[in-house]
Amino acid sequence: MPNISLRGAQMPASPIRKLVPYADAAKKRGTKVFHLNIGQPDLPTPQKALDALKHIDRKTLEYTHSQGLLSLREKLVGYYSKFGINLGADEIMVTCGGSEALLFAFLACLNPGDELIMVEPGYANYLGFAVTAGIKVKTVTSRIEDGFALPSAEDFEKAITPATKAILICNPNNPTGYLYSDEELFRLRDIVKKHNLFLLADEVYREFVYNGKPYRSALTLEGIEENVVVVDSVSKRYSECGVRVGMLVTHNKEVLSTVMKFAQSRLCPPLLGQIIAEESIEGTEDYSKECFDEYKARRDFFIDGLNKIPGVFSPKPEGAFYTVVSLPVDDAENFCKWCLTDFSYDGCTVMMAPAAGFYGDRTIGQRQVRMAYVLCIEDLAKALNVLEEAIKVYNAR
Amino acid sequence: MPNISLRGAQMPASPIRKLVPYADAAKKRGTKVFHLNIGQPDLPTPQKALDALKHIDRKTLEYTHSQGLLSLREKLVGYYSKFGINLGADEIMVTCGGSEALLFAFLACLNPGDELIMVEPGYANYLGFAVTAGIKVKTVTSRIEDGFALPSAEDFEKAITPATKAILICNPNNPTGYLYSDEELFRLRDIVKKHNLFLLADEVYREFVYNGKPYRSALTLEGIEENVVVVDSVSKRYSECGVRVGMLVTHNKEVLSTVMKFAQSRLCPPLLGQIIAEESIEGTEDYSKECFDEYKARRDFFIDGLNKIPGVFSPKPEGAFYTVVSLPVDDAENFCKWCLTDFSYDGCTVMMAPAAGFYGDRTIGQRQVRMAYVLCIEDLAKALNVLEEAIKVYNAR
Repeated sequence: MPNISLRGAQMPASPIRKLVPYADAAKKRGTKVFHLNIGQPDLPTPQKALDALKHIDRKTLEYTHSQGLLSLREKLVGYYSKFGINLGADEIMVTCGGSEALLFAFLACLNPGDELIMVEPGYANYLGFAVTAGIKVKTVTSRIEDGFALPSAEDFEKAITPATKAILICNPNNPTGYLYSDEELFRLRDIVKKHNLFLLADEVYREFVYNGKPYRSALTLEGIEENVVVVDSVSKRYSECGVRVGMLVTHNKEVLSTVMKFAQSRLCPPLLGQIIAEESIEGTEDYSKECFDEYKARRDFFIDGLNKIPGVFSPKPEGAFYTVVSLPVDDAENFCKWCLTDFSYDGCTVMMAPAAGFYGDRTIGQRQVRMAYVLCIEDLAKALNVLEEAIKVYNAR
Repeated sequence: MPNISLRGAQMPASPIRKLVPYADAAKKRGTKVFHLNIGQPDLPTPQKALDALKHIDRKTLEYTHSQGLLSLREKLVGYYSKFGINLGADEIMVTCGGSEALLFAFLACLNPGDELIMVEPGYANYLGFAVTAGIKVKTVTSRIEDGFALPSAEDFEKAITPATKAILICNPNNPTGYLYSDEELFRLRDIVKKHNLFLLADEVYREFVYNGKPYRSALTLEGIEENVVVVDSVSKRYSECGVRVGMLVTHNKEVLSTVMKFAQSRLCPPLLGQIIAEESIEGTEDYSKECFDEYKARRDFFIDGLNKIPGVFSPKPEGAFYTVVSLPVDDAENFCKWCLTDFSYDGCTVMMAPAAGFYGDRTIGQRQVRMAYVLCIEDLAKALNVLEEAIKVYNAR
């Protein structure tokens, strides 16, 4: 029997899914599990988009253009203009989820062996795409005691080598919810410009910004127009993660034509998802406002509640719907597992993602977890009670 | 401005799409273009599947399991059993089209720098996925004068080096339509076993077999159960290329668990496509029979018609809906372009895919084109007239 590839062995297992078997076992025992572990929004998909499925009058569900439906890309042009991002439909590549946009960005911008710098804690699947693309990831650390602010220019400079080709940020951030300030984005711009790097910006949580200020996209940073590649997705914005529609957006024509070659090899993004995405973009202002208000209320409620639990600390994130939380336990992974295998309170328990998997240096996140507030406030309240009790019982074992 | 990656520069441009701008220009001039160039079936998607879209009662279009919906995989188990392929739902990985299944197979089975042997002419996008995965492709040549039969064991042995890790076949074949015989598959099995290689088998045209015999899948080859990885897709089978649902199927647990890690990093295959695919598998026997009869009638009509044109030769393929045809012209690419830019007959012209792009050694296919019979017989008849006239006028210039 032939051996699998070494890169297959190197692929990191998902830190989020590792505990799934324990959660399944807990449910089988009749315990209700509050899922704070995943970024699957619980809110409905816009009804307008769901209705569109009922009115598809195509006889053949055929390939679309490899770059995506022109009608979808034209609507996206209008969407981006609302954020001060001015571009043409030809500067947007529709992809199979933000995931494929990330992979295409890696493939088009970096050679095997090239180095990519990312901020840790970071989205764990970046490491998976890095293995696929054969690139090396170096991390610079953002710290919970700084509220996960962007690391200093010195920290980036220390990580940069002749092999460095790109910096990857996620703004607002998954897993921390941190929103980079203008000053921080300008700092990144200067570094990128000085070293002639690509700036890959994952902006899938663009809509979820709670500080009342307009969102600043990396695409609007002056002087690095050719360096920026934005990764985007309709998944979180319209609660339609399953449709698998993302976007790669850049002003850099050479990157676009290169990405196009990778895109042609996989033929096209999903047709039905594109129809849903197109319907979601316009005429859904009320929907977006309702979602925004709901997430903001949850954030206020949940973060305050977390910080009221003795020994628990969460910064107050200004974006997305995640937070990385420090817990008064010896080992967060062990604690998360124990919550599923050995604990319940009033018939309930909580599932959280141990944060170690979001760090390159896994010791930093040893007492941290990532939580997503993708539950209604009533359930978040219950989950907070369960968590408080779990910490007490765990530490008294 | 930073440079794009070298692999981006190495990505082959699609041989099928190169001529698209000329076709668009021809249409703008009012010329009707018969598209023999692409594998986009013109037949309708099963009505049962289209109806399913109207009855989706989900409120949130959420992620599915990374491996795909269990209900879909269970239906696939039943489907495969009809071909004598016995497996469990856990041996099927649902992917974003056959394209992603191919990429996953490359990533899980081969290291960067490893060699893959494929038969030429071959599906051009294999080369794109090879660039993505950083693997080397070596070709063994099947020849039009042999009807594109499998090359000899000696030809394969000559291509095998210590770096060879896998052989990739497409059966029935795209672009030639050739169906490998039992004897040929046993020959491959012996080579694979002797050298401990993976056998990657692209079987997306399994339903399109016109010789009246049962189809033999690589998954049923005895003695190499752990070596075989099958790539499959619902695209062509049910005329639903746009839903992007494919499958990777193997009995090899280590390959499966490795592919699962790549699959988790991209989250999940498209939900709506999976719903369509699931509805297409059962209760569509009449649909499949109609499609089969239609393609078979087209093949008989079209191949006979081609061979009646002076100087034109096409083997009679026993599978798929393609054929590679030898034309009495100096340069097929030039001829294909000329048909779009300089020629029309009765207001019509034909678009074909120059075959050179399907060969590693591009000189072999210099006078060949790939044609797909994805038009109704009436249009195929017109296209044959146009082609005959085009050859005359082209050679008389």
